[in-house]
Amino acid sequence: MEKNVLSRREAIARFEESPVYVITDEGQSAGRGNLMVVRAALEAGAKFVQYREKKKALRAMYEEGLLLRKLTEEYGAALIVDDYVDLALIIGADGVHVGQDDLPAEEVRKLVGEDMVIGLSTHNPEDLAGAVELYKKGVIDYIGAGPVYPTQTKEKPAPVTGLDYIELAADTHAETGLPFVAIGGIKEHNIGAVAAVGAEHCAVVSDITMAEDIGAKIAALTAAMKKFALL
Amino acid sequence: MEKNVLSRREAIARFEESPVYVITDEGQSAGRGNLMVVRAALEAGAKFVQYREKKKALRAMYEEGLLLRKLTEEYGAALIVDDYVDLALIIGADGVHVGQDDLPAEEVRKLVGEDMVIGLSTHNPEDLAGAVELYKKGVIDYIGAGPVYPTQTKEKPAPVTGLDYIELAADTHAETGLPFVAIGGIKEHNIGAVAAVGAEHCAVVSDITMAEDIGAKIAALTAAMKKFALL
Repeated sequence: MEKNVLSRREAIARFEESPVYVITDEGQSAGRGNLMVVRAALEAGAKFVQYREKKKALRAMYEEGLLLRKLTEEYGAALIVDDYVDLALIIGADGVHVGQDDLPAEEVRKLVGEDMVIGLSTHNPEDLAGAVELYKKGVIDYIGAGPVYPTQTKEKPAPVTGLDYIELAADTHAETGLPFVAIGGIKEHNIGAVAAVGAEHCAVVSDITMAEDIGAKIAALTAAMKKFALL
Repeated sequence: MEKNVLSRREAIARFEESPVYVITDEGQSAGRGNLMVVRAALEAGAKFVQYREKKKALRAMYEEGLLLRKLTEEYGAALIVDDYVDLALIIGADGVHVGQDDLPAEEVRKLVGEDMVIGLSTHNPEDLAGAVELYKKGVIDYIGAGPVYPTQTKEKPAPVTGLDYIELAADTHAETGLPFVAIGGIKEHNIGAVAAVGAEHCAVVSDITMAEDIGAKIAALTAAMKKFALL
């Protein structure tokens, strides 16, 4: 069992400096392994990487997670584990991301202690209101907001929120400080629209993992966000 | 996050005094919920209960797990959670059971600390040899040995071991002290044969969870084991 590499503050700083939030999806990586995809993203400057894996056995995830941990440490990037709090603790990830149907964020906070990042998925104004309370209490550090558009990378996605929910999350961010990352079906052709309603962080899955040139894709996504950003 | 109710020593004592090891399977419980089945088993004197659930979201398992925790505490029984180390810690279970493809037992031990039981599934002589080493190092407390017979309660069971593997586990127990529970397709009609080759503990899933009268079933299973036991 390893201690996380980045402090909670350092990991949040990596989130803040990342317009593009990278999430693995080996099933849609054009035959490449998660490690190869993540290495390419890190080479391109990615600083916040979520290890999302729904199909492998936990033993295989443990082995892969240790390699991802080493790799992200090498590049000074934060490593977040999706869903598996035990795995996150064991490999020394910098944080864990949970959904509304996962273990309650308050309980996860007690388990991981004060020095790890917790992200929480939200899908509607009710989730968002709950997340604000958790953020004020210091339980969570950021939220996912979406799915903005239809997505093929989740088996049972929540109903599509459209851009309205991203605007609401942006307003909430302005009022409360709660950081958010827009997520769900975001690709190069639509990321500008998401940035235009106030998203400073966008999670992109298949458009990155399927890209032939992952570095060029991340650069293009970042440029499109900048071009349309409110600020 | 709750502290476990029973100490590791107390939980192991519950294992030792239990010829029948109860495992939940809500999909095969004749329409009853896990809580109803477990309550009936506890009423019948069961002292070692494993919460195995493969289909529900973790949030639902958390809520059910808390209720199972309260119920088992009421009856002085040990509660073991299958697979989910984070859930086990959060609900204050007395132990966790992991398989060969789950998080490594050594890492699980570091995560749960010294005062929780860890059980490990084994399926062949190589697994058994590894388990002996882990037992000698104080990492694990008992093993599952099987599947003795074909089983319908696991989606991808390991190859059937037959009774030979149970005899080997019994010999290993005699030599090293490593406690084992035979598992896999064990029912009232064949439990005597398993006891006859040296199993002092048998895990029974569907034959209990499907039983109309769970108390009578546990009594019958216990009686059959006693009748054929070596000792």
